[in-house]
Amino acid sequence: MRPFFRPFLVVASLAASVAFASEGHADPSAPVVLGLAVILLVAKLAGDVAVRVGQPAVLGELLAGVVLGNLPLLGVHTFEPMAASPFLDMFARVGVIVLLFEVGLESTVAQMMKVGLSALLVAIIGVALPFALGFATTRLVLPGHPMTVALFIGATLTATSVGITARVLKDLERSQTPEARVILGAAVIDDVLGLVILAVVTGVIVASDAGGSLAVSDVLLTVGKAVGFLMGALVLGTRLSKRLFGLASLLKVRGVLLAFALGIAFLSSALADFIGLAPIVGAFAAGLVLEDVQYQDLVDREHHSLEELIHPIAGFLVPVFFVLMGMHTQLTSFAQPGVLGLAAALCLVAVVGKLASGLGVRGSAGASRLTVGIGMVPRGEVGLIFADLGSKLMTHGEPVVSPEVFSAVVAMVIVTTMVTPPALEWSMRRSA
Amino acid sequence: MRPFFRPFLVVASLAASVAFASEGHADPSAPVVLGLAVILLVAKLAGDVAVRVGQPAVLGELLAGVVLGNLPLLGVHTFEPMAASPFLDMFARVGVIVLLFEVGLESTVAQMMKVGLSALLVAIIGVALPFALGFATTRLVLPGHPMTVALFIGATLTATSVGITARVLKDLERSQTPEARVILGAAVIDDVLGLVILAVVTGVIVASDAGGSLAVSDVLLTVGKAVGFLMGALVLGTRLSKRLFGLASLLKVRGVLLAFALGIAFLSSALADFIGLAPIVGAFAAGLVLEDVQYQDLVDREHHSLEELIHPIAGFLVPVFFVLMGMHTQLTSFAQPGVLGLAAALCLVAVVGKLASGLGVRGSAGASRLTVGIGMVPRGEVGLIFADLGSKLMTHGEPVVSPEVFSAVVAMVIVTTMVTPPALEWSMRRSA
Repeated sequence: MRPFFRPFLVVASLAASVAFASEGHADPSAPVVLGLAVILLVAKLAGDVAVRVGQPAVLGELLAGVVLGNLPLLGVHTFEPMAASPFLDMFARVGVIVLLFEVGLESTVAQMMKVGLSALLVAIIGVALPFALGFATTRLVLPGHPMTVALFIGATLTATSVGITARVLKDLERSQTPEARVILGAAVIDDVLGLVILAVVTGVIVASDAGGSLAVSDVLLTVGKAVGFLMGALVLGTRLSKRLFGLASLLKVRGVLLAFALGIAFLSSALADFIGLAPIVGAFAAGLVLEDVQYQDLVDREHHSLEELIHPIAGFLVPVFFVLMGMHTQLTSFAQPGVLGLAAALCLVAVVGKLASGLGVRGSAGASRLTVGIGMVPRGEVGLIFADLGSKLMTHGEPVVSPEVFSAVVAMVIVTTMVTPPALEWSMRRSA
Repeated sequence: MRPFFRPFLVVASLAASVAFASEGHADPSAPVVLGLAVILLVAKLAGDVAVRVGQPAVLGELLAGVVLGNLPLLGVHTFEPMAASPFLDMFARVGVIVLLFEVGLESTVAQMMKVGLSALLVAIIGVALPFALGFATTRLVLPGHPMTVALFIGATLTATSVGITARVLKDLERSQTPEARVILGAAVIDDVLGLVILAVVTGVIVASDAGGSLAVSDVLLTVGKAVGFLMGALVLGTRLSKRLFGLASLLKVRGVLLAFALGIAFLSSALADFIGLAPIVGAFAAGLVLEDVQYQDLVDREHHSLEELIHPIAGFLVPVFFVLMGMHTQLTSFAQPGVLGLAAALCLVAVVGKLASGLGVRGSAGASRLTVGIGMVPRGEVGLIFADLGSKLMTHGEPVVSPEVFSAVVAMVIVTTMVTPPALEWSMRRSA
């Protein structure tokens, strides 16, 4: 079908094989940049295939990672060192921080405040219902597991993928419809709600694993820290970043806008980590806080908007996250009892919970409830990040999210991402 | 003088201190992004100071690194973990690969072929003379050291810093003068010559350390590999990249231009490493080979030139290289006997050797020999990279470039970089 794929894959495969097999490189960066090259080329080829069959490119990247990561099942171990490289893992981690910063940049604090009742109600229903349904489903399907697993899985179902939703709307050229505004507003709010839930769930698990119980004071402390950080970031952050960029604009050196924006995003990520939140929470908050007006003179001076500067960095690092995320999906886990059932149940609950969120649309918004509900369905990076965090969080010596549960969550992300674009297109045409 | 610097440094210092001191992060990316934030903010502040006193920003980044890296002398150990972080080191390594790729992009193979006799003669004199003078000087100043040290120091003196030269010419708005064309053409050629010399010297050292002697066959093999790779890259590379981008333009996914360009640069770097050259040789060759005409339809489709896409990535990663490079400079080494003398001798030889290269300018070029000679003086990233490679290359269990010699090379880079902008401005005005 596309025979020009073959030479790339052959070259990439041979190169990876040779470089990782040979010992004692002159430069330790060689296997890392080779891994980055393989990821970038494979991501684009797989993204192209996804786009051609009407799916978002990110789905292709994920599936390409699943294929590369499961080649050992066929006796091909070429790409195994990539999945195990701590350096590629670090590029992926920085990549997801840049992605959430970029997503945050797409919205402003003011827009969030203005999104109105519809977006807020859609977000609340779209977080509460999937969380409750996910929790209940997990308790039913995995009765023997601790409650923390159900809490975590509930959390992975909450956040609509802003990136995927926005990309699908853009591809359909429907970014300016009432439905699009409600979906994007609600997606921003439910991302924040989801991140707060993640913070609460993580804090609760860590506290209970430290020997304590699910003390209300722990929960309140976690909620307080999460809400305090976000409110502090949103309220103080706007003034602080305005002031920082005012000072930055006095600097006579080039590249100040990018360096200060990344500096603020990274400092905010580290600060979030320091007070116990995930670094991506800080990156997202930094993105929300930064607004063009704060650094308009720097944009004029450097002839590029901040989005134009961040976009190539995200284009370089974000595929590393998605391809590696796919590589960590073990297909063998699906063969284990309960996983397929859990995956199917999670998919059902994930779709139903978000479809119902469309009921939050008020008549005054002039938006189709079905379209909004469908637009909220895709889960993506945030759900995967939650699952990834859960797989690294230990409780009683076991990871909260086991490889099997992780695979079920990935299946949920794949299915919700795959069903959305065609469904959204159908619904948009129907209501038009 | 600039009191608004203080809050940044206080915040950065406190944040770094807290994050690196506390143990067991929720996310291993937190200390890394904090280090990146500190580097980016400090680089811009120091770059601003450098620009204000008429120096290139890169000099400020280097000196800021020297300051941060030597704070332990004052009992401040806050930034020590940054200097030792393998992840920041990897970001720096990828950063220098991106930088050399970007520098390579600024020139084309066709321009290199066309630069004419003047540029070629300037390049040859400007490589041969500093190499010979550097070798002789080292033998005189450090009589007890093995000959390999002198070979390596000679090599560090060969390559004019294309980045610094181009940036200074741009700052003076003299990029279109005959002098500028000769300087840039010669700088491109002497970079390639310098890289071949590096390959030869490295190969010779590795071969002799493996028990053999300076066999002519080893030298010829190394020369053959280096020249073969470069010629192969330049001759076959153009056709291959044209073909790759022809295929890439069929892909319907976004971000193909950046992903393929980085993929080619990274594959070329890994290939260079695989055949025994430095990865940066491959990155530079890839940059020379890629030309707008090969991917014009992708540029039209994505509304940004490749340079616009690579520039932010370089802006993010390149300061990591220069600040960390500065941090690895131990000021205490200057106190050791012979180092100050070696540094002074290297500076003298470095300036004289390149000034004399101006004699290669033919009358027909219509360029001032003095101006061209001055323009060739600055050494920068390539010299530092050579020294860095030398410090990691072991011969008889000792690094070829000891910390003392490394410090002397850094001093040479700092001095040649510092004297150029004012001297070039003076000479340009004089001949105008």
